[in-house]
Amino acid sequence: MIPKTTLGSFQKFLGVLLLLLCFVGIFIVYYNPTVSWLTCSKVAAVPVHEVCTDACLNVLQTEDLERLNLTSALNCTSERNQLSPKEAAVVQENTSSRNASSPNTIVLVWPWPFGYSFDSESCGPTYGITGCHLTDDRSVYGRAHAVMFHHRDISGDVSSLLAMERPPLQRWVWMNMESPDFSASVPSMDNLFNLTASYRRDSDIWVPYGQLVGISEEDEPFRIPTKDKLVCWIVSHWKSEFKRVQYFEELRQHMEVNAYGHSFGKHMSDQDFQAVIPSCKFYLSFENSVYKDYITEKLFNPMIMGSVPVVLGPSRENYEEFIPADSFIHVDDFKTPKELAEHLKLLDQNQEMYEQYFAWRKHFVARRSDFGLEHACRICDHIKRNKGYRVFKNLNKWYWG
Amino acid sequence: MIPKTTLGSFQKFLGVLLLLLCFVGIFIVYYNPTVSWLTCSKVAAVPVHEVCTDACLNVLQTEDLERLNLTSALNCTSERNQLSPKEAAVVQENTSSRNASSPNTIVLVWPWPFGYSFDSESCGPTYGITGCHLTDDRSVYGRAHAVMFHHRDISGDVSSLLAMERPPLQRWVWMNMESPDFSASVPSMDNLFNLTASYRRDSDIWVPYGQLVGISEEDEPFRIPTKDKLVCWIVSHWKSEFKRVQYFEELRQHMEVNAYGHSFGKHMSDQDFQAVIPSCKFYLSFENSVYKDYITEKLFNPMIMGSVPVVLGPSRENYEEFIPADSFIHVDDFKTPKELAEHLKLLDQNQEMYEQYFAWRKHFVARRSDFGLEHACRICDHIKRNKGYRVFKNLNKWYWG
Repeated sequence: MIPKTTLGSFQKFLGVLLLLLCFVGIFIVYYNPTVSWLTCSKVAAVPVHEVCTDACLNVLQTEDLERLNLTSALNCTSERNQLSPKEAAVVQENTSSRNASSPNTIVLVWPWPFGYSFDSESCGPTYGITGCHLTDDRSVYGRAHAVMFHHRDISGDVSSLLAMERPPLQRWVWMNMESPDFSASVPSMDNLFNLTASYRRDSDIWVPYGQLVGISEEDEPFRIPTKDKLVCWIVSHWKSEFKRVQYFEELRQHMEVNAYGHSFGKHMSDQDFQAVIPSCKFYLSFENSVYKDYITEKLFNPMIMGSVPVVLGPSRENYEEFIPADSFIHVDDFKTPKELAEHLKLLDQNQEMYEQYFAWRKHFVARRSDFGLEHACRICDHIKRNKGYRVFKNLNKWYWG
Repeated sequence: MIPKTTLGSFQKFLGVLLLLLCFVGIFIVYYNPTVSWLTCSKVAAVPVHEVCTDACLNVLQTEDLERLNLTSALNCTSERNQLSPKEAAVVQENTSSRNASSPNTIVLVWPWPFGYSFDSESCGPTYGITGCHLTDDRSVYGRAHAVMFHHRDISGDVSSLLAMERPPLQRWVWMNMESPDFSASVPSMDNLFNLTASYRRDSDIWVPYGQLVGISEEDEPFRIPTKDKLVCWIVSHWKSEFKRVQYFEELRQHMEVNAYGHSFGKHMSDQDFQAVIPSCKFYLSFENSVYKDYITEKLFNPMIMGSVPVVLGPSRENYEEFIPADSFIHVDDFKTPKELAEHLKLLDQNQEMYEQYFAWRKHFVARRSDFGLEHACRICDHIKRNKGYRVFKNLNKWYWG
């Protein structure tokens, strides 16, 4: 028999131990560690366990996890099982397709536009478009929700496309960012596609070259960059029959234009480009061809970099659909290049008038779109939201008129 | 001094008590009750605590909660504080606007289209479009992200609209579902709006009268309803100059057409309507006016109810953008109404040929859109996804050509 005193001490010890265990237990349950040793992905913005338990993960759909930047939960699975990225993608698809209301949407890119590939799971982190899987793996064709065809990369020969069997709900999307002048018209493409994705505002999936978006707190306050040149132009594609070339030739007779690029024997690196544009009061945003909505990076680059665009392209009215009337100068505002030159020289002498062209900066910042990736992601977003039957008839008439 | 035995018993009791408390604590932390006494909303699909802790609620954005049908978390707040539904909406807005990346998007409806109001928080449950607050309360004008104007309800007098000050990022959306023939052209509306929402496919926010969507497991297998009539037509808007009236007058000379509606002294209740259409082999889907994309419920009603539409409207090509070529008969397929009558009689005698018109049912079901509510919700969805500056120029030229 154990003496009473020993038993008493033991009981006292047991009580304290239980109390300690209780505290440890409560601490483990409630403590939110700031280090990430409990998560297995480096990219997770929020440690998974902080937000969800395993039960929660079953309730949340893949799409929700991705919206919350919690793909790490899925990455864990694949890491644990040592799957290849491709296999992991399949796991992810299957995981999500268990929940019929939110399967991963597969966009098959046929082929990568101009050969530039992009990461298959980029839509979430880049655009907040979740539940998309982009791939160029043609073996998933039968399961792909959409196939994106970049015009330039397929226009040489569409015979194989015409012969292909197509799953009844799959959408074929014609993607093109070149103007009709620089895109080959292919009559057999007429009724080949379900949807269009282009710079044209009346495309099913509209992806302009750039946009003005509302300013946010993260945007640095704008200051007009220091200027040491009046008018600049960087051009690589030079043909004497281009309207822009003819206009330039006449304009330079009335004022100095700092011209750069291949055509002037002045190759521009990215760095040169970034340095030159802000240093010019005006930049010639001259399009290579004139078509409705064909308003390219030639406009958005100077708007981003703090130069005033002088545009040659579609009508002023068309520009004003996308940028404020007082944010640019249109060559059509003047009867002749000489008159434009005079106006630019006048503005050079009047800082207050010049600064008016930046009034839009109070509310907006300019952004460029991403070629290819943005199209694929917006296609994914579109087909997730628009389930209706749709065929695009008469592509040739629509695009080449 | 307390005797040792009493102290020992007390310690024993204390140990057991702590152990019990510990179990109770752990039980409370881990137990997932199946009854809903811990949640305070009846609509929550998933009890909040099952998915998230309070810490989690801070991480999840309002939008995420709503996507997960977890608005109950926010409802709790308002119930506890005994707020009115209107006040609760404001709380919800403020709660979410704390998180700048996902504020509730306010669509001010000016006024309710044709006077029919809809519930302010309907977009989530009805279309899965979350983070939207619809209202006709003009006191929120300054904070509204978009204002939806139903053409018919504002076309009488736009002078007050022209005089209104507009927040720089607010979008004014022109909404109309009537064809140009039945919409008054108002020149001063030309540059008044930022976006358009209509049946036209090239609207910024396209809301067709209906669509064919992929069949799902929940859809009952389709069977052609029992037929006891060959051709039917229900019409209320009758004018002798309408193309459809002229066509009908000629068609009825070659075959019997079961005609109903106001013009034939046969008023149709909703019930009659639902009973008649399926009982007809063919239904005259004759539009009141002929315009591109103006394809209305006159087409989608028979497609939903199991009758074959005989269409009079835009070109066959235009219809084929939205429904399969073999799902309908176009009056333009025949040189004369007499030839159409002959074809319909032929199909009446050939069940196999007739059934071919339902081949699309293998993959699709037809759905109608909701007037007004769907527009407001899709506007909300659109402006959440498309932050770019946009002005709609020349409404009159675009719509009335």
